Amino acid sequence: MKKNYDYLQSLRKVMKDKGIDACIISGTDPHQSELPPHHWRGREWLTGFESENGTNGTVVVTADEALCWTDSRYFIQAEAQLKDTGFKMMKEDGPEAVDLIDWVTEHTNSGQTVGIDGMTFSVAYAQRIQQELNDNGVKLDTDFTPFDIIYPDRPERPKNKLFVHDEKIVGQDVDSKIADVLTQVKEELANAILISALDDVAWTTNLRAAGDINFSPMFVGFLYLDEKGTRVLFIDKEKLTKEVEGHLEKYHITVEPYDSVKDFVAGLPKETRLLLDPEKTARGIYDHVGCTPVFGGDGVAKLKSIKNATMIANLATAMEKDGVALTRFFMMVEKEYPTGKLTEVELGKRLRALRLADKTCVDESFSPILGWNEHGAIVHYEATPETDIAIEGDGLLLVDSGGQYIYGTTDITRTVALGTPTAEQRHDFTLVMKGHIALSNAVYPAGTTGHQLDVLARQFLWKEGKAYYHGTGHGVGYFINCHEGPQNIRLNINPTPLEPGMITSNEPGLYLEGRYGIRCENLVVTEKYETTEFGEFLHFHPMTLFPFDLRLFETEIMSEEEIKWVNDYHKLVRDRLTPLLNDEEAAWLAEKTKELK
Amino acid sequence: MKKNYDYLQSLRKVMKDKGIDACIISGTDPHQSELPPHHWRGREWLTGFESENGTNGTVVVTADEALCWTDSRYFIQAEAQLKDTGFKMMKEDGPEAVDLIDWVTEHTNSGQTVGIDGMTFSVAYAQRIQQELNDNGVKLDTDFTPFDIIYPDRPERPKNKLFVHDEKIVGQDVDSKIADVLTQVKEELANAILISALDDVAWTTNLRAAGDINFSPMFVGFLYLDEKGTRVLFIDKEKLTKEVEGHLEKYHITVEPYDSVKDFVAGLPKETRLLLDPEKTARGIYDHVGCTPVFGGDGVAKLKSIKNATMIANLATAMEKDGVALTRFFMMVEKEYPTGKLTEVELGKRLRALRLADKTCVDESFSPILGWNEHGAIVHYEATPETDIAIEGDGLLLVDSGGQYIYGTTDITRTVALGTPTAEQRHDFTLVMKGHIALSNAVYPAGTTGHQLDVLARQFLWKEGKAYYHGTGHGVGYFINCHEGPQNIRLNINPTPLEPGMITSNEPGLYLEGRYGIRCENLVVTEKYETTEFGEFLHFHPMTLFPFDLRLFETEIMSEEEIKWVNDYHKLVRDRLTPLLNDEEAAWLAEKTKELK
Repeated sequence: MKKNYDYLQSLRKVMKDKGIDACIISGTDPHQSELPPHHWRGREWLTGFESENGTNGTVVVTADEALCWTDSRYFIQAEAQLKDTGFKMMKEDGPEAVDLIDWVTEHTNSGQTVGIDGMTFSVAYAQRIQQELNDNGVKLDTDFTPFDIIYPDRPERPKNKLFVHDEKIVGQDVDSKIADVLTQVKEELANAILISALDDVAWTTNLRAAGDINFSPMFVGFLYLDEKGTRVLFIDKEKLTKEVEGHLEKYHITVEPYDSVKDFVAGLPKETRLLLDPEKTARGIYDHVGCTPVFGGDGVAKLKSIKNATMIANLATAMEKDGVALTRFFMMVEKEYPTGKLTEVELGKRLRALRLADKTCVDESFSPILGWNEHGAIVHYEATPETDIAIEGDGLLLVDSGGQYIYGTTDITRTVALGTPTAEQRHDFTLVMKGHIALSNAVYPAGTTGHQLDVLARQFLWKEGKAYYHGTGHGVGYFINCHEGPQNIRLNINPTPLEPGMITSNEPGLYLEGRYGIRCENLVVTEKYETTEFGEFLHFHPMTLFPFDLRLFETEIMSEEEIKWVNDYHKLVRDRLTPLLNDEEAAWLAEKTKELK
Repeated sequence: MKKNYDYLQSLRKVMKDKGIDACIISGTDPHQSELPPHHWRGREWLTGFESENGTNGTVVVTADEALCWTDSRYFIQAEAQLKDTGFKMMKEDGPEAVDLIDWVTEHTNSGQTVGIDGMTFSVAYAQRIQQELNDNGVKLDTDFTPFDIIYPDRPERPKNKLFVHDEKIVGQDVDSKIADVLTQVKEELANAILISALDDVAWTTNLRAAGDINFSPMFVGFLYLDEKGTRVLFIDKEKLTKEVEGHLEKYHITVEPYDSVKDFVAGLPKETRLLLDPEKTARGIYDHVGCTPVFGGDGVAKLKSIKNATMIANLATAMEKDGVALTRFFMMVEKEYPTGKLTEVELGKRLRALRLADKTCVDESFSPILGWNEHGAIVHYEATPETDIAIEGDGLLLVDSGGQYIYGTTDITRTVALGTPTAEQRHDFTLVMKGHIALSNAVYPAGTTGHQLDVLARQFLWKEGKAYYHGTGHGVGYFINCHEGPQNIRLNINPTPLEPGMITSNEPGLYLEGRYGIRCENLVVTEKYETTEFGEFLHFHPMTLFPFDLRLFETEIMSEEEIKWVNDYHKLVRDRLTPLLNDEEAAWLAEKTKELK
């Protein structure tokens, strides 16, 4: 057995000592982060089901059973890593899915107690658990924190220093943002708000940090605001610098210790109507709220999703920097590919280095997906020393990557042919691009949602009985999270309309298992198009700047309008990037953006 | 003042006598019919806001106020007809909308009583009213039936004779349909069902009647079914013929008086778990239910929406008959148009006569919309002697009509040019047709819903800042209602997937106020297309058979694929209709379906 088996036994001992018959351990933090800091990654430590870029898992332990739920992205990895740990994998999606709450309900009896650490469960999720348990006479203890005892080397909370996101780059100061947030608060009939989501805290304060969360320059803290002008940031004070302290003073934001947030909400007067997002607020905080709670509060996400003109202009700069890095990267790939020595892992290192060569690029915006041929068909492929393969022979290379520039967040996927592409590959690539172009070219009335447009990107694949089952587009943050809401472009219903200033990805694809994958992704901004007697119309403008592989277009199945789109886009790329390139690079780009006929 | 003012005073007297402080009068019947029989059209009689084809209105009367709510389709008509009646029009949609329930709540005081006739309010609607009133201490009396007193000449319930819808044409007998219904009932954890919706009763029993409901061959009755085999039709016995009695006996359906349904549900034993659709069941019935009610029950609508192979084959026959009638109609229009004597009303009469010349056509399937030029721009235009205009000069004629054939229900819109069309008219027509073709040509994975495909029909108009705001497609019944659910193709969210056997309209349009309207409508059936490694794919097959006006296509903006679709469709029309036409008609059709280049 692995050492995790011993951890499991320690956990069971603590459960017994505390009178806990079953416990549920989440994989998140008090901010409901998708990828939490290591301090809150005890579930990974306990089970050994882990990865630097995070894994999705929720553990249930009873006296006899130890289970770890995960989703289909991780089935293979979890099965392997959980071997000999005492934990058994459970599926949370797919045909063999088992509902975690149902399982716990069926395996506990009236009079027993289930323990959770309320700080790592959202109010909404904990409520669902409690409801089902109480219906069966089982008690929920929301203060079961075993890692304090069984995890001696538990990493401390991240202590990375904050820095101010230059307000000349942001285009909106903190006073103005707080005023907007409080307007939303008032609309929800509340008079105060506790913001728990780290991207919302970072957005509102114009503060960032590198290192707290992989790939996202957010920091660990809570923000309280009320209509009387009280503004409190709950944060570990070691994280502050003189510059940041000055910034907070300027905006009358006082600083309190991170852990004091519970006492603070406990002490709020009854007349405070505190807006809490039940999906983002920890149950452990809610349990302390002494004033009147108001549930709602996704309004900050909505404010954050609309980028102002300064942000859009700066994102254009980030896109130029990204385009230059990608030009250098793909030039290098073409040059070195014949040696047969390039591998997926090596390409990942090179791409990271080229992006971070620009000092305004703080980090990559996610762990890049670099997939050669059959690996490109694995939608969430991550090259590791174990899976790595050499880039040799003929094929398609799929590169999905991005950077966290202080000027904005980028996210781009290109699929390029190395050696000679097959007719089938060119045909499939062109079907994907026809969808990309149809969506990019769309004009739509104000009020239109992403799910109403989604089919435009899928229609050409469907006509040939082909399909991809991931979303076509996600919202993108501004030097925060690479994935953010509330808008998206998916088959699934999402009532949020696309509004001017929203940045969304446009990334149709096609994946042929064991053969190759194709994805073509630009970020696009929603802009006003025209107002007519039929109302206001919007359209997308592409922000990303890098050519699509000309060798992969089957022009015979393209319309004149589609070919024109490619040529217009490539001219835009050439015009914008050429001034930033040396002669050799400019010549390469000119070749890569020459007219498609 | 009009006589309606006197009716209003009688109503107020009855209210006073019965201790009713405010009353709400709906415009529907105990079956929630959109267009009820005259017996239940007391709201129209009371207010004078009426039309042979029905109007949408809900009345609220207090001691001081008399209001009639309606929707934007009727604002002009209601305003005019309500003049000097004592009733004031209220808007239920648009920017000046007032919520009826809110109004009643604000205009009643604690301790007062609001009266409704529970038989003409759905369980769901009555519940919403009751909730808001009770929150304010106001009582709801659901047994206020003033028309019994104040409406001396009230028409009696319709006594039209039923007939059997030939089961060779239907392709499924009543035993099989009831078995399907009871499977749905079981899935909802119930063991019995009371079906109130007239189309669902007609579908399940394979019975029809002409005259009870304008344009829809349904009849007034309730149907009770349970898993023990009890089958009861509640109906006025005068409606039965020997043939129908034999049909009911054959399927062990007993007959009880229409009015006895309340006593029947009151007498059901406690262990009966009675499935009721809260949107279709009258509150007045629910108030009597003595057993255990289970809310749900839209499963019958789902069963009804999927047409079997026999129905699809027979609908093809109905479409041929409809195509022949339309050929004769449009030939006549072309021939007589130069006289300048044709009018919209006259054309309506001619079209009806040509359809009903086929003895299998029982009625039109709705009141036809015949709009010349500016009248075509009024989406729900109905030509009357007051609005009628002559078909003269150059312009576009929009004809939206259909027939109730025993072989199925048709619904078709064609827009044709008379005289010389303008370049703008041809351009707009082609944009609409490009959308029609894109939707008609769509291939989509099983599970796809209509709202996911809707944009295909709108995209070309949107690109030019043009739009229509009605739905693109509605479900169509099989010799029942011309509009039925649960599927549709709209901007609005509807989670019902399109399934093989569903008949849906495809009818994009464009309306230029005061100038002209365009709509191009076929009925299409969803069919299996192919199964690939990516899953099962479906597509639409056009059922309607009549050419689109070749003179209105601007081929310069059409793709080869679009032109091919028109030519293929026109070949289908020609091949199917020609054998049914005389030489002159066949020659005319050949000219109308000649190849577009």
